[in-house]
Amino acid sequence: MGKNKGTRGERELFHMFWGAGFAAVRLPGSGLSKYPNPDLVVGNKQKKYAIECKCTGDSKEYISKEGIIQLLTFSELFGADPFLAVRFDNHGWFFFHPNELERSKNGNYNISLEDAQKRGRKFDDLKV
Amino acid sequence: MGKNKGTRGERELFHMFWGAGFAAVRLPGSGLSKYPNPDLVVGNKQKKYAIECKCTGDSKEYISKEGIIQLLTFSELFGADPFLAVRFDNHGWFFFHPNELERSKNGNYNISLEDAQKRGRKFDDLKV
Repeated sequence: MGKNKGTRGERELFHMFWGAGFAAVRLPGSGLSKYPNPDLVVGNKQKKYAIECKCTGDSKEYISKEGIIQLLTFSELFGADPFLAVRFDNHGWFFFHPNELERSKNGNYNISLEDAQKRGRKFDDLKV
Repeated sequence: MGKNKGTRGERELFHMFWGAGFAAVRLPGSGLSKYPNPDLVVGNKQKKYAIECKCTGDSKEYISKEGIIQLLTFSELFGADPFLAVRFDNHGWFFFHPNELERSKNGNYNISLEDAQKRGRKFDDLKV
């Protein structure tokens, strides 16, 4: 995944959340900070989400264990629900709790388009 | 107040909150976005704060009504308590809800060092 593609995806979700009545914050420095950093922090009166965004043109997306650990650490401290958001080209966004992802032998995480379509949350499921 | 001074203040508070067990997010693009934007968003399991930061070497600090409206709008949508954080040189940080500030005839807000020392919250008061 190119960096620009990730940034575009992040921006798309950011606008989608504002459009749905949430307030959203982008963390463009994600990965550069000494503190754990998701891509987006989103909230309304009822819910707070910390979100790591991925975009792919393939039928499977891989996520490093370090990225997931950062997401979980931030979410635990901040008091937010952690979500991985994956956009499969032409299929839109799917949302997963880290513990719903498949893990490979090396400890990294992955999600296939097939699995996403079977059991991923859609954007509307996050509107509460 | 110079922009650099504001940015340094923002960064200082950011580290203070992480040091106190919160997760904190800086929004360096504050003022550039089409959405309302505080300087910091901070949370732990119990509390969420949206914070606008000001630093001054004077004995009085002025805050535009637009800045306060942005802070209130973001906080209402996100579900956070809004705070103005003012650092008076050599006196440290003081925290105010917008409705605790003085207003001038033109609708802008201000806070004096004397008032801050009398009735401002200190950083430790925000740790819950």
